[in-house]
Amino acid sequence: MSTLVVPESIPSAIEDCEQLRKAFQGWGTNEKLIISILAHRNAAQRKIIRQTYAEKYGEDLLKSLERELTSDFEIVVLLWTLDPTDRDAFLANEATRKWKATNQVLLEIACTRTSNELLSARQAYHARFKRSLEEDVAYHTTGDFRKLLVPLVSSYRYEGPEVNTTLAKSEAKILHEKIKEKAYNHEDVIRILTTRSKEQLIATFNNYNNDFGNAINKDLKADPKDEFQAALRALVKCLTRPEKYFEKALRLAINKNGTDEFALTRIVTTRAGVDMKKIKEEYQRRNSVPLERAIGSDTSGHYEEMLLALIGHGES
Amino acid sequence: MSTLVVPESIPSAIEDCEQLRKAFQGWGTNEKLIISILAHRNAAQRKIIRQTYAEKYGEDLLKSLERELTSDFEIVVLLWTLDPTDRDAFLANEATRKWKATNQVLLEIACTRTSNELLSARQAYHARFKRSLEEDVAYHTTGDFRKLLVPLVSSYRYEGPEVNTTLAKSEAKILHEKIKEKAYNHEDVIRILTTRSKEQLIATFNNYNNDFGNAINKDLKADPKDEFQAALRALVKCLTRPEKYFEKALRLAINKNGTDEFALTRIVTTRAGVDMKKIKEEYQRRNSVPLERAIGSDTSGHYEEMLLALIGHGES
Repeated sequence: MSTLVVPESIPSAIEDCEQLRKAFQGWGTNEKLIISILAHRNAAQRKIIRQTYAEKYGEDLLKSLERELTSDFEIVVLLWTLDPTDRDAFLANEATRKWKATNQVLLEIACTRTSNELLSARQAYHARFKRSLEEDVAYHTTGDFRKLLVPLVSSYRYEGPEVNTTLAKSEAKILHEKIKEKAYNHEDVIRILTTRSKEQLIATFNNYNNDFGNAINKDLKADPKDEFQAALRALVKCLTRPEKYFEKALRLAINKNGTDEFALTRIVTTRAGVDMKKIKEEYQRRNSVPLERAIGSDTSGHYEEMLLALIGHGES
Repeated sequence: MSTLVVPESIPSAIEDCEQLRKAFQGWGTNEKLIISILAHRNAAQRKIIRQTYAEKYGEDLLKSLERELTSDFEIVVLLWTLDPTDRDAFLANEATRKWKATNQVLLEIACTRTSNELLSARQAYHARFKRSLEEDVAYHTTGDFRKLLVPLVSSYRYEGPEVNTTLAKSEAKILHEKIKEKAYNHEDVIRILTTRSKEQLIATFNNYNNDFGNAINKDLKADPKDEFQAALRALVKCLTRPEKYFEKALRLAINKNGTDEFALTRIVTTRAGVDMKKIKEEYQRRNSVPLERAIGSDTSGHYEEMLLALIGHGES
């Protein structure tokens, strides 16, 4: 489901490094050459390129890129080149420092990664920031959001297929009761949503729908302006249908007055190697326009080229 | 600081397995032979023995031990032979299922292991119980204890030496205010104790002592019968002076009307390979009797022999 296009036979890491070095030298930078290499290497390949580059030229490739590139194009190339776990640590820190109730990035990282990916991001967070992710999240958030986000980013959900159907039924009932009482921040609501496995939650939400007549996310829309309910809806989507969550996040980033480039860059760089194909299908279905075209009319230059390369534009 | 005594030259894993197999065969079981081998192999060596045994005899060594041994001796040998992370998963599950406010095992596991050891135990928990540790803890606990224990067992504390002294001062003040108001369950108290690194907390507690005239654990004794305050005191000890926590836990297990064998077994098997030397020193200092003698007068038979072998009795 990745949209990443890696050529069938790729040059050696040394050759890639030499080409990149060439792109940095002389008059101006050869952005097209940079895109033609980095946008078409997977995470493992980019990692080797970075190691090889550091050995060969005594400088971190990211440093060279930072010096040569500017603005949105710089950010998309840097984020893409970063190791995915390190990138998550970086994004989680950005979201934590600038946290506000409408920022759903922490929730997105906590719920759309595998349990081990989230753990690795927490380890990368230690190395990079000399603190723990949950420590920073607890410090920078308050109230209901803290109650929700700290266990979310600390979670290590079980990922096996086992589902306890009795529990799914009883916890659907608890969720329904609390939502009916508008006790969205009730500790059982938070406990269930932050600790149960995705398979278990899917069964719980199905029970909810069957037994009470509405999808849980419909009932979580009693007050569409309430930011905590919006967060819970996003959480449910991230856990059960991440492509729907990302479609909406892309739509909002693109349709904003003045594109939200950082959001666009974040989603494309984090999902290109994972599930961007599904997200593109969802985008087309919901907006009746291909994501490529939406991005193409909202961005320009090398930034646009890089984004389109990552989402597999022009490939069948 | 381990009390484990491993001979300078150890037999091969195959020889160990053959000896163990011999101990299981014929009339009765040769418990002394079992102790002479297993009590003197470190975790890595025991792991190889278990693998070799399974390959050679087509049965898990733990199964054979279970069949041959009984009662407290069986439990101490089984717990000792288990991989430490798997043992923690097992102990955490026991403590969760039988949880009550005076049971401090979850807190002990969450706070006296390294961050990576706790993560590994959570991974082992998935494999063994098909659920996550925090999921079970959240489900089986309530109220203030849930608010404390869920973030504790989910924590991945930073372990570097960096300390933020400004923060240590301001958070000492917060702790002092909340304790003075008897708001022991205040979310900031829980946030600080469950997310900050051990080094950071040591600095915070030092500030507390300097700025407000009492050690934090003294102020947490306003009502010595209150179980939540007792849990907070245990937490502070586990984080800053684990040997003091374990000394007290051993003292209570031994001095009980009828020894608490499971507690004794838990502490000896989990600490022998880690810091039992320091715990023994602390025990001697606090009780004016060597731990060996206290254990010797409270236990008997092969169970006693195994415990004494693990805490390095008769070795200099």
